[in-house]
Formats: sequence, C-alpha cells, structure tokens
Amino acid sequence: MASGEDRLIERYFRPLARDPAALGLSDDAATIKPPAGCDLVLTTDGVIEGVHFFADDPAEAIARKALRANLSDLAAKGAEPIGFLMSLALSAKADEKWLAGFAKGLGGDAETYRCPLLGGDTDRTPGLISVSISAFGALPHGTMVKRAGARAGDLIVVTGSIGDAALGLALRRDPALAGRMRLNEKERAHLAGRYLLPEPRIALAEALREHAHAAIDISDGLAGDLTKLAAASHLSMRVESERLPLSTAAQKMIAADPALLETVLGGGDDYEILAAVPSTALPALQGAAKSAGISLSEIGKVGEGEGAEIIGPGGGAIELLCPSFSHF
Amino acid sequence: MASGEDRLIERYFRPLARDPAALGLSDDAATIKPPAGCDLVLTTDGVIEGVHFFADDPAEAIARKALRANLSDLAAKGAEPIGFLMSLALSAKADEKWLAGFAKGLGGDAETYRCPLLGGDTDRTPGLISVSISAFGALPHGTMVKRAGARAGDLIVVTGSIGDAALGLALRRDPALAGRMRLNEKERAHLAGRYLLPEPRIALAEALREHAHAAIDISDGLAGDLTKLAAASHLSMRVESERLPLSTAAQKMIAADPALLETVLGGGDDYEILAAVPSTALPALQGAAKSAGISLSEIGKVGEGEGAEIIGPGGGAIELLCPSFSHF
Repeated sequence: MASGEDRLIERYFRPLARDPAALGLSDDAATIKPPAGCDLVLTTDGVIEGVHFFADDPAEAIARKALRANLSDLAAKGAEPIGFLMSLALSAKADEKWLAGFAKGLGGDAETYRCPLLGGDTDRTPGLISVSISAFGALPHGTMVKRAGARAGDLIVVTGSIGDAALGLALRRDPALAGRMRLNEKERAHLAGRYLLPEPRIALAEALREHAHAAIDISDGLAGDLTKLAAASHLSMRVESERLPLSTAAQKMIAADPALLETVLGGGDDYEILAAVPSTALPALQGAAKSAGISLSEIGKVGEGEGAEIIGPGGGAIELLCPSFSHF
Repeated sequence: MASGEDRLIERYFRPLARDPAALGLSDDAATIKPPAGCDLVLTTDGVIEGVHFFADDPAEAIARKALRANLSDLAAKGAEPIGFLMSLALSAKADEKWLAGFAKGLGGDAETYRCPLLGGDTDRTPGLISVSISAFGALPHGTMVKRAGARAGDLIVVTGSIGDAALGLALRRDPALAGRMRLNEKERAHLAGRYLLPEPRIALAEALREHAHAAIDISDGLAGDLTKLAAASHLSMRVESERLPLSTAAQKMIAADPALLETVLGGGDDYEILAAVPSTALPALQGAAKSAGISLSEIGKVGEGEGAEIIGPGGGAIELLCPSFSHF
C-alpha cells in the first residue's frame, strides 16, 4: 500500500525525474558518476512562505524561483548544472492544483537549465510551505570562480540590471506605489516579474570561468555583496552609481524618489552576477555575454586597500542605512 | 556590516566547516574533487518541528537526528560519507542557547561519522523550525546497493532491533504507558533513546556493498519498507515475525499488549538496514557486522512471485491496518 507521500511523488515528481541518476525516485538515494577531471560545485538555498515568497504567489513561480536561486549560485561560480535534490514541506494549502502548478514550473526550469531532479523528500507540515533545494554543478578541476581572487586593477562588472526585484517587492507590498511613481503597465510588470522570477545567468558560466578572477551572485543587494566580494580578496572595490545598469522603470522611480536608491543598492533578489575581471579579458567576456543575450556593464574598479564604496553623482561615497538585505 | 545570518553562521557553523571543500562557508558554494573511479551517492531528508521531532526535544538531538537520517540512507546504499549541505529555518524559539546546542550536536556527529558540513543556508521563519540536509557519499563506480537486485533464494537480514523508536514515540506521547507496561527505567530509557537518536549503520556500508544484492534503510516501518524492497526486485519477500530482533523492552510491551506488534512493524524511525543477501555471503556479512559491533539477524527469505508478508506465530500472514508510517 502506497503512502500519501508515495502517491504524491508518483503523480507529480516522478515524471520530472527522467535522468537515470534519479533511479525514478524509487531508491533511497540518487547516484551520479562525476564527469572525469571535474570538480563538483555544491550549493543550497531555501525559500519559505511569507519570507521569500508570498502565500498567494503562483506555485509555478515559487518552484522556479527556488530552483533559480540555486542555479544563480552555480552560474556565479562558473559551474554547469548537473542536477538537484529537493526537500519540500507542504501545508494543507498545497492542494492538487498547487502541486500541479509547482511540478509544472519545476519541470520546465529543470529542462530549460538542464538541471534534472535527482531526488527529494516530501513532508506535510502544520506550518508554512518551504522548498529547500541543493543543486550540483561541474567544472574542470580547479576552475571554480571564487569570491576571493580579485586583483588590484581588475574591473568590476555586473550582469543585467540592478534593483528591479527589490522595487518589484516594494510594489507588491504597496500596489498604489506604481501609480504614485507614474509607472506605465509595462514598467510595473517588468519590476513585478523581476521579483517573481529571477534569471540565473547560467549561459555565462563558462566565460566567467575563463575570464573572471572572482565573482558572487547578488542575492542580498549590490552594496552588501560588493562588500563581501571585496573582503574575500582583501582589496577595495569602488563602484560608480552613475554607471549602474538600471531599467527605465527603476530610473523613473529613483528620479521620483531619490531615497529609493537605497532600495536598489541594498535590496535583495537581483540574482545578477558581480565579478572582478582583468581589463585585458573584458572584451572576451563582453563578447560571450552578447552571444548569450546577457547585458554586461563595467561599473567600477578594484584597488589596493580594503572596503567597498559606491560613489554617488557628487563624487562622495553613498552612505547606506542597510547595505545588505537580510531576513533576520 | 555583517547581517544577522552572517553573524549566526560565523558564530555557530563556521567552526564546524573545517573541511577545505567548505571554503569556510565564505563562498556561494562548496567544491569537492570526487574520488577517482567513484560514483557519488546523493540523498536528502528533512525534519520539521511537530512532525519529526517535538518542539521541546533538545536542539542537540534534533541536529543529530537530522544528519543521522541522511547517513542511514548512505549506509544502506553502501556509501562512505563525504559531507553535507544544510538548509535551516529558524523560528524565534531558536535562541542562542538552542543554536549552541544544535551546533554542538551537529558538529559532534559530523566528526563521529566523518561527514563534514560543506555549506548551508539559514533563514528566520515565522513558522516552525525545520532542518533539511543533503548528504553526499562515495563508493567505487557501479557498486551502489540498490533497492532492486534481490534474487530468489536470497536471505533477508536486518540490523539492530525493530520497533524500538516507534514504541519510544508512543511513550513520548503517553508517558503513563511505561508504568502500565511495567517497564523498568532502563527499558523506558532505551526506547526513548532509540526514538530520539537513531544509529546510522555507516560501519556496515562497505560490507553491504560487497555482500548484499539489495538494501533499504527502514525509516517508515519494517512492513512498508519490506514491501518496497520486494516490489523493486519484482520478487516476494517473506519474513517470520518470531525471528524479528526485538529489544527486551519491546518484547515486554508486546507481551503485555499484542496489538503493539502493529506499532513495531508499521512505525517509523528505525533507521536499521534491511537487505537481501545470498546465503553464501551471509557468514562474511555477519563477520563484518560483528566486527562493527552491529547485530545482524536473518529474518526471512526472498522467493518467486510478488509481495511482502510477515508470517505470525500461527503460520498465517499478519494483516496490518497501516503497514507503512507516513506523516501524510
């Protein structure tokens, strides 16, 4: 007699576990033969209802965000995805419809990013829904792009645009804000979408491995993650706020309320990549980014000394009340 | 400025992450070079407050149980532990004292079982405490002991004793039961301890790899997991209840209330290993178990046909209302 968990796995998750390593989710563990000469890169990230997503977010988006947060870590380290394990805590709210949407989102992204579900653990909880994912990637031995490794003189680059997700979250909390900021529907939808569904920069993994000295994925805000990147290399990093890549929606909001620059710099959920790159390698990295359809902006420089600074339009460092986003 | 999460990691978890692969928990991911010629075995298991442990269980025991549940999966597959990732959701209840106890338990077991903390993710939750662990093991290529693979004529063996944890849980829910069953303090403590702290049979991993055709770790009750093991090999498995290894405490409780046999056979949290072994290999496996200080009992046989049966003292199959423990 199959238990409730078995039936749920059979119906929703076994169809996603087509990779031979997953053994059809019918064993106690998955098994992989690591690619020869490769290191494995291991990361874990979880999302919790009411903390990282709203209870009424679409289940499909919750699944995708949970997986993408992990893929973003792999991308920043230069790793190609191999697969993932998932530990799922489901409240009564997670009914058949919710589970069908969740499995659809998860399966779609697993396919898009070639990161198959290898195994998992599913439990009912009297508490909140949570999704913990551990993702695995591979790269040639010794080539992981670390946080440490930047050199004085390196250029600081960032993918995509910064702050959209944090502004999207602000709009989610205060829907009237879009009207006060005179955002058009396209701009509002852009910010909302960037909060709901990050874009892991997996397509840039190989080029980062080849060209970057150090990298981090921006999950807790540019300011805080720049500080971590600088500290890991025991060097200083100085970024010019005027060079930051901002969407037109973000530019409009900051123009209307300059205090929102704090949200842009210190908010979470960007899932862009911040990297230190030697100037000689910048053209090659830019070429790879262009081929991958990912914008790449040079925003600052690595120097001697310690600490991270974001220089405002007036030439002085911008002081942030809360430079790093934390749920604590 | 360090966030609350950073401070917490620094204080409680960085001291546990001494393995070079963990990069001092100061990067986005861990990296390991898999042992040459080996496959990796990947498993994940989570525990949730109020579901898998009681809110007032010692934090030290919660950490150890969470890790040990994963180690038990690795052991059953014949894998040697490499390390683990942990995703932690902490409620307000998880104060400094709780965290210190948790880290102590986790660190102690990571050392005992040579399974270092490689990375993690920590969040505050407005909900219940939960701990999700993904553990990794290694074994020579192609040697993972699967659930499938038993052959007709194989003997069925089980480690340790069965049902103690389920009876320990019953005592936890109804403390007066110990008195009604006339358990002495040693017997009561034995059952309580077996519920609180499973013993992963890691020391038997190599011998299982060498001698077992198929294996599963018993986490949802012998009856249900025997059914899974039989189904995976498309064979029948028949176990004699009189040969089941029962502790003296369990024997006493079943003698007082025969209905408790249902709890013993269908309860959860045994974390013993159930395996199908060719009769020619049994002496070698028994020798290895003896060397490791783990008892091993021959309890039944694999035959043609399908299905799992537990034969009672009268010679007929025992019918269970709920052969497999499920939190659903």
